[in-house]
Amino acid sequence: MRDFSQQEMAERNYIFDTIKSVFRTFGYAQIETPSMESLSTLLGKYGDEGDKLLFRVQNSGEKAAQAPEKGLRYDLTVPFARFVVMHQNEISFPFKRFQIQPVWRADRPQKGRYREFYQCDVDVIGSKSQLNELELVQIVDKVFSLLDIRVVLKINNRKVLTGLAEICGAPDKVVDITVAIDKLDKIGLDAVKDEMREKGLTDSAIAVLEPVLTLSGSTEEKLAKMRSIMSGSETGLRGLDELEELFGFISEAGVTVPAELDLSLARGLNYYTGAIFEVKALDWEIGSICGGGRYDNLTGIFGLPDMSGVGISFGADRICDVLKGLEKFPAGLRSTTDLLFANMGEAEVKYLLPVASALRAKGVAVEIYPDSTKLKKQFDFADRKAIPFFSITGADEAAAGTVQIKNLASGEQRVFAKDDLDGILCFLGK
Amino acid sequence: MRDFSQQEMAERNYIFDTIKSVFRTFGYAQIETPSMESLSTLLGKYGDEGDKLLFRVQNSGEKAAQAPEKGLRYDLTVPFARFVVMHQNEISFPFKRFQIQPVWRADRPQKGRYREFYQCDVDVIGSKSQLNELELVQIVDKVFSLLDIRVVLKINNRKVLTGLAEICGAPDKVVDITVAIDKLDKIGLDAVKDEMREKGLTDSAIAVLEPVLTLSGSTEEKLAKMRSIMSGSETGLRGLDELEELFGFISEAGVTVPAELDLSLARGLNYYTGAIFEVKALDWEIGSICGGGRYDNLTGIFGLPDMSGVGISFGADRICDVLKGLEKFPAGLRSTTDLLFANMGEAEVKYLLPVASALRAKGVAVEIYPDSTKLKKQFDFADRKAIPFFSITGADEAAAGTVQIKNLASGEQRVFAKDDLDGILCFLGK
Repeated sequence: MRDFSQQEMAERNYIFDTIKSVFRTFGYAQIETPSMESLSTLLGKYGDEGDKLLFRVQNSGEKAAQAPEKGLRYDLTVPFARFVVMHQNEISFPFKRFQIQPVWRADRPQKGRYREFYQCDVDVIGSKSQLNELELVQIVDKVFSLLDIRVVLKINNRKVLTGLAEICGAPDKVVDITVAIDKLDKIGLDAVKDEMREKGLTDSAIAVLEPVLTLSGSTEEKLAKMRSIMSGSETGLRGLDELEELFGFISEAGVTVPAELDLSLARGLNYYTGAIFEVKALDWEIGSICGGGRYDNLTGIFGLPDMSGVGISFGADRICDVLKGLEKFPAGLRSTTDLLFANMGEAEVKYLLPVASALRAKGVAVEIYPDSTKLKKQFDFADRKAIPFFSITGADEAAAGTVQIKNLASGEQRVFAKDDLDGILCFLGK
Repeated sequence: MRDFSQQEMAERNYIFDTIKSVFRTFGYAQIETPSMESLSTLLGKYGDEGDKLLFRVQNSGEKAAQAPEKGLRYDLTVPFARFVVMHQNEISFPFKRFQIQPVWRADRPQKGRYREFYQCDVDVIGSKSQLNELELVQIVDKVFSLLDIRVVLKINNRKVLTGLAEICGAPDKVVDITVAIDKLDKIGLDAVKDEMREKGLTDSAIAVLEPVLTLSGSTEEKLAKMRSIMSGSETGLRGLDELEELFGFISEAGVTVPAELDLSLARGLNYYTGAIFEVKALDWEIGSICGGGRYDNLTGIFGLPDMSGVGISFGADRICDVLKGLEKFPAGLRSTTDLLFANMGEAEVKYLLPVASALRAKGVAVEIYPDSTKLKKQFDFADRKAIPFFSITGADEAAAGTVQIKNLASGEQRVFAKDDLDGILCFLGK
């Protein structure tokens, strides 16, 4: 687990503030759920592996023999489902919510994997319209454009994957088929066919799939070809209809991010029922930095059936890595203080107190060095904290009713009447 | 533990955003520490009662027999001390940090007590100057003035309390003496004297304390009287010097919050070594809403001695109660969406998509109802979410290149050319 320093907080806040500002313009509401949920809420929702990675929480007050009844949040999705069911009478559906909170996984610590990390989820629940999918695409577009990260958005549809398995007579092999298709770029067509054979697909099934593996052209062309291949699967055709509608919405809405049909995309396969999304950075080698999809029965397990929803999750740690790698964090993120007044003694400090207050009232971040110590030490403090302006206002300046301020980057030094707030603000670039 | 709805999040964010904006103008840096700390870091820091209230965390992967090695954060102070010691070589001292994170206590749930709640701490560590105390007073002043809550700031000094116990010959009875003085307002002088007698104070000790119990007048007068009473205690006199210096700073700095010397104030007695603060709301009956003090050895227990610091903590839940009780939350905190476009069908929605995008680019929060359903249902949705503007833009408006927008509060209805962003923004009050 990690401490977050001032610098790291500034970077994380920059990412979350950017994302939140976009969520807000689409009318999403922020909620939070408690860190702990009943174990009965959490267990069995993430597979056996997930159950093992749950942190269980013991009251110290409880007898040691007593089994823990609570676990720490493993993701934001299950608590969100529990929230929707519990508050269904207070919620106006379709419910558009976002949630930015830490989650915990008892993973073996390794590079880039943390036992505590923030998730940032945005979902609409209670509407089947693909305008919701479009909205998430627009959010992706806007967020990465604001963050100045070039990305590609890959889109698939779970029903198409189901359809593929159906048309080659292996409806139970949808995972194997998808995994194999996913490797096409890396291992080539023949190896993919070998792998399918190993997984038990017949040669005739593979012959049916081959045109899919070699699909090329524009999204429209791909969809048209798929439509003929898919003609035997009702589910597959519905998936193609959905994709066609969504790509239509995307082009109408003036989305600028490149959106690609990617039939190998299969994240969260057992969970999603319609659209599937994944966002990859174009200029930095890293896994997906955002992804999600539509689910038709998130809340059914908690007793509220037929609640279709769609959501995506932004990977804050990876986005942070990309911004760092591409040096795209805005300059000046680090410094919190604009101006440091050196402490030249009690009388001078008392003279400066109202000046500092007046500047703070204008939104300037001002520090007065608290101890009357060597000037060198005070200057080093400003330097280490990258404070851009430093003031040595001593007895002479106080007697003259002035303050001296130096721009540490340019070396420019100016003297202002202590009431000349406008002059000082202008010099500070405020 | 609590879910936080959109409304509650908006209220909490309002409080924290206000507080953070003030912290920033004083150059405080935000940090975060992990939710879990080693049990060895946490145990023994909060007394026996605190140890019992620690939540212990078990990896599911660990053998059931294995004792938990981690506990959930109980407050922000101990993790801060651990942080300072661990990162001492990266930190520029004096280190001014704030931290806003949840803490957990395995308390029996009761009204107004939660097992998970946010703390909001601000501290300076590595400086003995009382300019730091002043800064915290200025922060209190500014925060509650921005929140529009009238408060009184009570100030005491631990050294004065030690001095009182010394001059009546009972240096071990500093807690008993302080607790007794604290009851003066409620039970009267004679009952306080009885209680002191019960606690084993001699009549002559009580005679020495009586002038303190009946102290009145201005802060200056109180300090002067205390100085004569205290003349036998070096520690007590140093405490009075500190109080005099601090009240001097406060009057020089133009602080507007009433700051009162309160000799009965003794929060965190075993912990604080100098100034002690407490903030009470004047117009709402509730415990203290902010408090803190100076500590001389926070980090000693982790191997870094002689690090004096001073800090205060804002009680977010109580501040929220006060703002609710006094109806001081700003209007409009609830609605996240400015304008809802009704969904009149796919063609109309496609017509509206670029309009919605253009408005969002101007910072307006816009929703398009995702489903083409009964207008009554869409209107009810706007109503329940308190969305102030509603647009029914149908085929006729689309054909004419216009959008219709209605102000739901005033009933005023206008039609704009779809490109007339300025006109729309003005109508929306943006």
